Amino acid sequence: MARSSAGPEIERLIQLLGRLPGLGPRSARRAALHLVKKRDQLLGPLAEAMAAAHANILTCTTCGNVDTTDPCGICRDARRDPGIIVVVADVADLWALERSAAINARYHVLGGILSALDGVRPENLNLDSLIDRAASGDVKELILALSATVDGQTTAHYITDRLSHLPVKVTRLAHGVPVGGELDYLDDSTLSAAIRQRTGL
Amino acid sequence: MARSSAGPEIERLIQLLGRLPGLGPRSARRAALHLVKKRDQLLGPLAEAMAAAHANILTCTTCGNVDTTDPCGICRDARRDPGIIVVVADVADLWALERSAAINARYHVLGGILSALDGVRPENLNLDSLIDRAASGDVKELILALSATVDGQTTAHYITDRLSHLPVKVTRLAHGVPVGGELDYLDDSTLSAAIRQRTGL
Repeated sequence: MARSSAGPEIERLIQLLGRLPGLGPRSARRAALHLVKKRDQLLGPLAEAMAAAHANILTCTTCGNVDTTDPCGICRDARRDPGIIVVVADVADLWALERSAAINARYHVLGGILSALDGVRPENLNLDSLIDRAASGDVKELILALSATVDGQTTAHYITDRLSHLPVKVTRLAHGVPVGGELDYLDDSTLSAAIRQRTGL
Repeated sequence: MARSSAGPEIERLIQLLGRLPGLGPRSARRAALHLVKKRDQLLGPLAEAMAAAHANILTCTTCGNVDTTDPCGICRDARRDPGIIVVVADVADLWALERSAAINARYHVLGGILSALDGVRPENLNLDSLIDRAASGDVKELILALSATVDGQTTAHYITDRLSHLPVKVTRLAHGVPVGGELDYLDDSTLSAAIRQRTGL
């Protein structure tokens, strides 16, 4: 039997680090050793940053974003168009859209997408609060920024149906050739969509 | 310019996580989001484990291992043979040997290996304390468990030279076919070493 040489503190650190996405048991061990070696430069600051995040981070009850305030900074930002809500599956998608600075609107994080296979049903998502927000009167347009997968499209159709009685325009992201993408490597559906939705120059 | 949507707490977490080996900027972002989502199950415990490790982990002044005590648990373990010291480059190597449970001896962590290219000179390693330990009279054998690379072998030769005046046997790990390894994929030097050092059945 393998003996534990690292002591319970380090073993616990390895075990918890191994639960992070992207770190397996071996890389968790390597990360723990790196932390222990850089005790003052990295382990201490990271422990503090995590404690601060744990103490202060909230989920915005309006949109589902994570921030230190509720409502979150985006929901409180008066410079953002309150008439447009960008619907995303996950906070990661919200971050990606914010990084792109593509739109200056509000968001709504569903917390997943409908999936028959994974057993994700409408009641598991933040859908009721989305309908409430859409019905509030301020909202003119809902942009469904969901993945172009079967589940993403199912979710989009479901939301469109639920909103059909409201005077809100529902749009989705354009399909097409990714900027910088080579035609040769693109699948047929994307190419077909790009041809169908071609734009004038 | 990309806007920061994640708030300073999360940005700091992402930045510090990105300094772990095996996590790039993108996977650090993913890990931070995972932590923020699992605030109570993972972020809180990990913050505590890190704070505990930061407060309690020491480097053993005898052997260079990391533990919560100095001397470390291995150096204090009376059941271990004090006559054999296994010399390793890094604490990770010590952990690997302990996991294999191959030997029940003491260790000495050099903190690196000599490298002309990386500018690692003898004074940068825990070599003086190794010579002191070897000269203490208790030690009968020094096993150099160093990588079979040019730098590892240079370090082994250097240590052997420094110890030549002492009545201490210096050995190194056997070269050969890794257990479970396929001959077809092995390099010529390993195969030659395995043939030269063949053993009777």
